[in-house]
Amino acid sequence: MKRNIYLKKKTLEEAKTVSAGLAGLIHLEAEMISVMNASGRVTDEPVFAKISSPPFHCAAMDGIAVKAETTYGANEQSPKGLLIGKEAFFVNTGNPVPPGMDAVIMIEEVHLLEGQSVEIREGAYPWQHVRSMGEDMIATEMVLPANHKITPYDLGALLASGSREILVKMRPRVGILPTGSELLEPDQNLSAGPDTLSGIIESNSYVLSGLVNEDGGIPVRHDILEDDRVKIREALLSTSENADLVLVIAGSSAGSEDYTRSLIEETGEVLVHGVSMMPGKPTILGRIKNRPVIGIPGYPVSAILAYEELVRPILHGALGLIPPERTKIKASVTRKIPSKLGTEEFLRVKVGKIGDRIFASPLPRGSGVITSLTKADGIIRIPPSSEGLNENEETDAELLRPLEEILSTLVMVGSHDLTLDILANLLGKYRPPVYLSSHPVGSLGGILAIKNRVCHLAGLHLLDPETGEYNFPYIRQYLKGIDVKVLHLVYRDQGLIVQKTNPKGLQGLKDLTRKGITFINRQKGSGTRVLLDHTLETLSLKPEDIRGYEKEEYTHIAVASAVAGGMVDAGLGILPAARAMHLGFIPVAKERYDLIIPSIYFEDNKMRKVIDAIRSDEFKTLVSRMGGYDVSRTGEELKGK
Amino acid sequence: MKRNIYLKKKTLEEAKTVSAGLAGLIHLEAEMISVMNASGRVTDEPVFAKISSPPFHCAAMDGIAVKAETTYGANEQSPKGLLIGKEAFFVNTGNPVPPGMDAVIMIEEVHLLEGQSVEIREGAYPWQHVRSMGEDMIATEMVLPANHKITPYDLGALLASGSREILVKMRPRVGILPTGSELLEPDQNLSAGPDTLSGIIESNSYVLSGLVNEDGGIPVRHDILEDDRVKIREALLSTSENADLVLVIAGSSAGSEDYTRSLIEETGEVLVHGVSMMPGKPTILGRIKNRPVIGIPGYPVSAILAYEELVRPILHGALGLIPPERTKIKASVTRKIPSKLGTEEFLRVKVGKIGDRIFASPLPRGSGVITSLTKADGIIRIPPSSEGLNENEETDAELLRPLEEILSTLVMVGSHDLTLDILANLLGKYRPPVYLSSHPVGSLGGILAIKNRVCHLAGLHLLDPETGEYNFPYIRQYLKGIDVKVLHLVYRDQGLIVQKTNPKGLQGLKDLTRKGITFINRQKGSGTRVLLDHTLETLSLKPEDIRGYEKEEYTHIAVASAVAGGMVDAGLGILPAARAMHLGFIPVAKERYDLIIPSIYFEDNKMRKVIDAIRSDEFKTLVSRMGGYDVSRTGEELKGK
Repeated sequence: MKRNIYLKKKTLEEAKTVSAGLAGLIHLEAEMISVMNASGRVTDEPVFAKISSPPFHCAAMDGIAVKAETTYGANEQSPKGLLIGKEAFFVNTGNPVPPGMDAVIMIEEVHLLEGQSVEIREGAYPWQHVRSMGEDMIATEMVLPANHKITPYDLGALLASGSREILVKMRPRVGILPTGSELLEPDQNLSAGPDTLSGIIESNSYVLSGLVNEDGGIPVRHDILEDDRVKIREALLSTSENADLVLVIAGSSAGSEDYTRSLIEETGEVLVHGVSMMPGKPTILGRIKNRPVIGIPGYPVSAILAYEELVRPILHGALGLIPPERTKIKASVTRKIPSKLGTEEFLRVKVGKIGDRIFASPLPRGSGVITSLTKADGIIRIPPSSEGLNENEETDAELLRPLEEILSTLVMVGSHDLTLDILANLLGKYRPPVYLSSHPVGSLGGILAIKNRVCHLAGLHLLDPETGEYNFPYIRQYLKGIDVKVLHLVYRDQGLIVQKTNPKGLQGLKDLTRKGITFINRQKGSGTRVLLDHTLETLSLKPEDIRGYEKEEYTHIAVASAVAGGMVDAGLGILPAARAMHLGFIPVAKERYDLIIPSIYFEDNKMRKVIDAIRSDEFKTLVSRMGGYDVSRTGEELKGK
Repeated sequence: MKRNIYLKKKTLEEAKTVSAGLAGLIHLEAEMISVMNASGRVTDEPVFAKISSPPFHCAAMDGIAVKAETTYGANEQSPKGLLIGKEAFFVNTGNPVPPGMDAVIMIEEVHLLEGQSVEIREGAYPWQHVRSMGEDMIATEMVLPANHKITPYDLGALLASGSREILVKMRPRVGILPTGSELLEPDQNLSAGPDTLSGIIESNSYVLSGLVNEDGGIPVRHDILEDDRVKIREALLSTSENADLVLVIAGSSAGSEDYTRSLIEETGEVLVHGVSMMPGKPTILGRIKNRPVIGIPGYPVSAILAYEELVRPILHGALGLIPPERTKIKASVTRKIPSKLGTEEFLRVKVGKIGDRIFASPLPRGSGVITSLTKADGIIRIPPSSEGLNENEETDAELLRPLEEILSTLVMVGSHDLTLDILANLLGKYRPPVYLSSHPVGSLGGILAIKNRVCHLAGLHLLDPETGEYNFPYIRQYLKGIDVKVLHLVYRDQGLIVQKTNPKGLQGLKDLTRKGITFINRQKGSGTRVLLDHTLETLSLKPEDIRGYEKEEYTHIAVASAVAGGMVDAGLGILPAARAMHLGFIPVAKERYDLIIPSIYFEDNKMRKVIDAIRSDEFKTLVSRMGGYDVSRTGEELKGK
């Protein structure tokens, strides 16, 4: 089988230099457009004032225009009369000051006399309440330079100085070619139900289109191309004739069906294949007929990072602009992050402010996990020269959300529960909204986060098998010296996840010991495992009588997945996991899920809103409607035994 | 005459509280739109995953899917054969892993045998090169919360989790009513030539429309309304029925034709009239039929600031968002800025980095000067509790341009010349561009800026009458101990500005002494005055023989304006001023205009580009084409006598 060999991998800096060179290949034509539509466009040539602004000496107040000289000496004792039409002229704000006049007296200080006269009781000084011609802009003066991105403010300057149409650069056309035989168009997806899905929904091209739009380009998406050399070649050639820049998605790795590199070589030139960045390594930079062609990796996070680091600068360069940089803040990472020497890593992080410190906690690093970007508050770059970051090390985080939003966010760490999504939604309706950011690291992780003071609250469902008490034994053990409140959120059902029709007729845990029934377990230390063991003991059931008790999975969904795949008959988990896989669910135990809140945050304004929301009827109604939850004590502040 | 009395003026903070309340009046309907068009819109309800992503266990590499167990023990010495279709299945990246299989072996490590078999030389471990179902998102999980502004990244998560259409908030409709009898529609302006213009071009409504668009609203502009109570009332009532929010521009001051306040009172309720901010004081906040109605001041800078401080939060609030804040940096102001106690002032500034320090130099403070915003790099808020800023005082500047652009900017202070605009344009064509920011404060101001180390270069045209030498005598006097280079830019013509047809037949300075000829002078200390006096002396002409020699104006354009108004026959100035006013020009002297560059900046990368640009044929050609300039020595480094 033919396999691509990466060219000598380039550092990101080297690749950026090549990318800057590619920008030089793009020559955008100019077009004349109405000033009214010009916001966000880029000037092609400098714009000069056609008229001055104001275009004449004009009144800055409603009143009368006078020649200051003729008003000298007027005062309360000896008012002065002025003849309208000769010594004084009525003007409103913005009206020209008539020839020979050089001052305006406010109408409130003018007394109308009978006939054609007015009376004033104070003299005017020259140029009083007059805006001089050209005070703002003088005809022929440059209003905007070339290569300037037009703002709404600029529209005011352009219109006031007499421009109605201006020459702007045409928006660069970006051809986007999604390739891959496994891809489905988004509207192909659900027609036959999710269970029949045999491919991956193509979404990269739409994400890239959105980014191209933001960068001032026009995305032109091609239909999905299957992995067929001839068809991709054809599309590549025709697109590179009709677009200013071509993005080919996927097919740029070293796999056997990865044609992008060899096709660009065949029809043009490959300048870079392989960049020392992660995600984003398999990026290709090349050109066909002097048009830049970029091979974008197929995994969604890689695709986005390759675009942002190497394509965005080309579009900005072609428009004569500098790409914007994100706001940076200093943040301490919540755990040690080893990283590969020689590679620039883009770590997606949640950012939160706890007390006076700003923390960044890493999200999953896989390049296939788009939610590691949609849920991220920021990105930390780990440079090629670094082997990673130590726990609590301070570093720059580039923000993906506005800082105000991050500062309005309460950081929750611990076990995740779906009712937290409902809560977050209710909080989003407050004006201003309160944001709740949830970091699912398990109950014990939540306790430790409170201990290390890196969160505002934690979600826990930890049963103490000794006492049968939830959460408090762990708080007593781990949070000595930290004053916390415990707010009860919900009771939730744990149950047996079984085939949709429950063909084996399982009714509870005791059926697991029946002959021919197979089970899959959760790992030791998980809340669900603790619950299972405790419940088995209560029911006097023996683990060794359950076939598969020793086989462990690490998530609810993995358990459900094993049932769905027909490998086992049942596993213990929560209702949403069963629902996600269209499986049956038999409740076997209720567990208590509480929020642990350090007392110092309990009276915080934002926290009060959280507590109010939890105690609201709306929250309880929405949670009840989901099924699998008991809200009878929701919102109560609990005290340990 | 009836005059509005301001309600008790509110502080900006108080007004913002009222504005936040007004947001609560807006209830936006939801609409279903395609995910592909959803970037930038705001979710109306949470979006849940319809399918998991990936929707099945899938191959992360091209290769064969196997059950890991069956591969154990394979190595170089004892390769293992696998039967295709039974023990191994060909899969490409993204393909489902067939039932029963749990690992993928890369195609590069698979050896094809004759018939239906393959051979492997290394075992696979379970889940090797497999992306598990739901690794990214699990069906039923929340993908986006309500009130979330959708990013291009989000499109990927939405599509991959099976959403094709989503419910978003409708964009708020913002009615914009420009009022004022003095206003002209922009397309009315130039038809009859600028000299016949009798009104002010209406531009505020277009600026506000641009801002509304940026904030996610739909601007609906009304035609210009003249100052007619009945017509404005009618428009106000009909617009408040058809829009979510109404902006009435102008008519909100205390003048006699300012109807906005009384009309809102008549048809609804005025909540605030008068805000302690500058610019922006005459803002009105009110409501008609439970729709927020805002009276926006008529001066362009006031209009923008009133919008940004008080309307933007309403639009964001209605959408459930927090308004974005601008990036802030610390900057030292270049001169003392007194400010009114009790008023929040918004000072527009140029920002530049000189050496290690960031400076902010104030732009004109008038609320009518839109270029004080279009030329600004940032805004400094002077709080109501402050009487102003001292020279070199450090304060926060909110940036209006990207920081990278500001850091790529060379700051020039001194006398302004039009050829600098040409230079700036050429520099904008470099990739990356170099920006040149010019602060026109006169030649002597430029020298002092070099001395105070607040600029990268200065523009000078200072003649020493004693020696007849340009610039060097001043450098020797003021810049002792500072090593500078002098780069010659241009020689430029100063001349007599006269009526277009030169009816008095003036040919030079000596004609100014003719009987019946009137003149207007420039102020003492200006370069032009120095030049005039020196030239008169050379020609043995006496000032006392020139009628009007004692009458002084402060700018070239004021001189031209006096000629254009017919008040005098001639003044001394530069060609562009004459052109701006469509006047005649008779050259009388050439002056030398040089750039002074501290040696520490002379070899700077950006400065080298400036020098290259000045020495380029393109620059010289463009300057020659303007007329009034001599480029014979342009770009030479000069040495003093």
